[in-house]
Amino acid sequence: MEKENNKIGLAIHGGAGTIAPDKMTPEMERDIRAGLQQALDAGYDILKNDGPSLDAVVASVEAMEDNPLFNAGRGAVFTAAGTHEMDAAIMDGKSLKAGAVGRISHVRNPIRLARAVMEQSPHVMLVGDGAEQFAKNVGLELIDTKYFYTEERWQALQRVKKAEAEARISGKPLVISDQDRHGTIGAVALDRQRNLAAATSTGGSTNKRPGRIGDSPIIGAGTYANNLTCAVSATGDGECFIRLVASHEISALMGHGGMDLNKAAQAVIDRISDLEGAGGVIAIDKNGNISLPFNTAGMYRGHINSTGRAVIEIYK
Amino acid sequence: MEKENNKIGLAIHGGAGTIAPDKMTPEMERDIRAGLQQALDAGYDILKNDGPSLDAVVASVEAMEDNPLFNAGRGAVFTAAGTHEMDAAIMDGKSLKAGAVGRISHVRNPIRLARAVMEQSPHVMLVGDGAEQFAKNVGLELIDTKYFYTEERWQALQRVKKAEAEARISGKPLVISDQDRHGTIGAVALDRQRNLAAATSTGGSTNKRPGRIGDSPIIGAGTYANNLTCAVSATGDGECFIRLVASHEISALMGHGGMDLNKAAQAVIDRISDLEGAGGVIAIDKNGNISLPFNTAGMYRGHINSTGRAVIEIYK
Repeated sequence: MEKENNKIGLAIHGGAGTIAPDKMTPEMERDIRAGLQQALDAGYDILKNDGPSLDAVVASVEAMEDNPLFNAGRGAVFTAAGTHEMDAAIMDGKSLKAGAVGRISHVRNPIRLARAVMEQSPHVMLVGDGAEQFAKNVGLELIDTKYFYTEERWQALQRVKKAEAEARISGKPLVISDQDRHGTIGAVALDRQRNLAAATSTGGSTNKRPGRIGDSPIIGAGTYANNLTCAVSATGDGECFIRLVASHEISALMGHGGMDLNKAAQAVIDRISDLEGAGGVIAIDKNGNISLPFNTAGMYRGHINSTGRAVIEIYK
Repeated sequence: MEKENNKIGLAIHGGAGTIAPDKMTPEMERDIRAGLQQALDAGYDILKNDGPSLDAVVASVEAMEDNPLFNAGRGAVFTAAGTHEMDAAIMDGKSLKAGAVGRISHVRNPIRLARAVMEQSPHVMLVGDGAEQFAKNVGLELIDTKYFYTEERWQALQRVKKAEAEARISGKPLVISDQDRHGTIGAVALDRQRNLAAATSTGGSTNKRPGRIGDSPIIGAGTYANNLTCAVSATGDGECFIRLVASHEISALMGHGGMDLNKAAQAVIDRISDLEGAGGVIAIDKNGNISLPFNTAGMYRGHINSTGRAVIEIYK
């Protein structure tokens, strides 16, 4: 009983990295798959009821922000200082309006604040206490940072600090599992009005220098949407995605270079590999095609289209 | 006595806006022209002696940061809180390495800190106290904020605050001269080794909300360089440049769309106009062509190429 024939589609990611099957317990895998399914359902419920793609990506991202298994919101990793600094961004493919926040420490759902910046401020990007003051002004509750404390992330910080100290002493290269290192969540969607949207949220990387901003809140790097081409959300080594202006590059390869979504997204991941970066993207085009390339062992991901068949995957 | 036949070139800007001849005193115009000339000389001296484009853009930007007439460094405008929050970015077109800083309050030359982030940290972007801590670590002197106090900028803050209060009471649209509102400085260069570089530095916009990050430190928005295409630095309504990923879009229109520099730069300024934004860009391509389109009454700008003939302009 579709009101229009237009296609809908949604893709989500919960981070990419060296997600090896042998390091994953069956319980962990089950919980992550359930979390991805829940996030996919939250967004898809909106799309199939003719709701806007902006609402859908926010619903999917919020579901993952509330889940301590993902590195965003509740499950955000610790900085070197033992604090939390979260970043998030959202972009509306129709108007090219965008909102981004960085270094947020007291907002339960950073993606909600990014959306408020887009819709209720003349700015695109607010960071730090200025962003939190704005959160207060628009009525978002500021919460105690202990909400973001999870034992697993705290142990990850200790492991990374120990590995760094050992590498410093031995002079050997630093080996940290990507699992401990970073992770980002995101969603991209196409709604029945043919509008594309993208949203990304992250706790950054474990043990990061306070003040470091990754690609997630950089419009064009980790997050981008344009109704003429595609919507993209990235995860991985943020610095490489910033240097390549990766999300906008996928759009430009389609819009100016005539590539299809798959080819454009894969070309950019190949460039990330050239820079010795690790990561992946989720992307959806204006026709509902979905592409999810990554150059790591795994990427937590899920997608669903007009058929209503959900796909959840972790490994290659 | 050129060692190689390769062309060199340099373009700089000191901000765009409603710079009307009737509001400009002869003394002011003379001083601004002298400041632009000095900045052009500083960068060109390096290029003509076969120095790298990265050194040239830093030298030009530093000259303008040290000049209280330009809104960056010494002459940075005041935030709504009466503080200074400066942003800067640099990008190397050869390696696609980049460095950016935001919300800096105690660093004399923010562009120098952006370069240190690029060359001495694994990160691309650091903001706030984390960036200033990094400045200390790499030996950059942190200075008292009174260095950035200039009577003219303080009066501009009072004018903007008064205009905003009057607009709130009367309900009439806010009218602020662009002169009071914003301004950004930047430089782009091509060196004899065919390497492109871009650098941008700004005090942001007068009376801005603390925490607001404009386009200047966003790689791809206000600053971008790629040896395959061009180097770009933007000035104007930062939010529009972020939404269009303007600097990278110029590069993409050339690299993927086959446009020449002039056409690509003008196309992006036309898109800025479509979004009702004001501003301009300076751009140089890998062959030394220079383009400086803007949609405002004026843009402080200068350029010079292998002929050694410097051009300084203010109005259309």
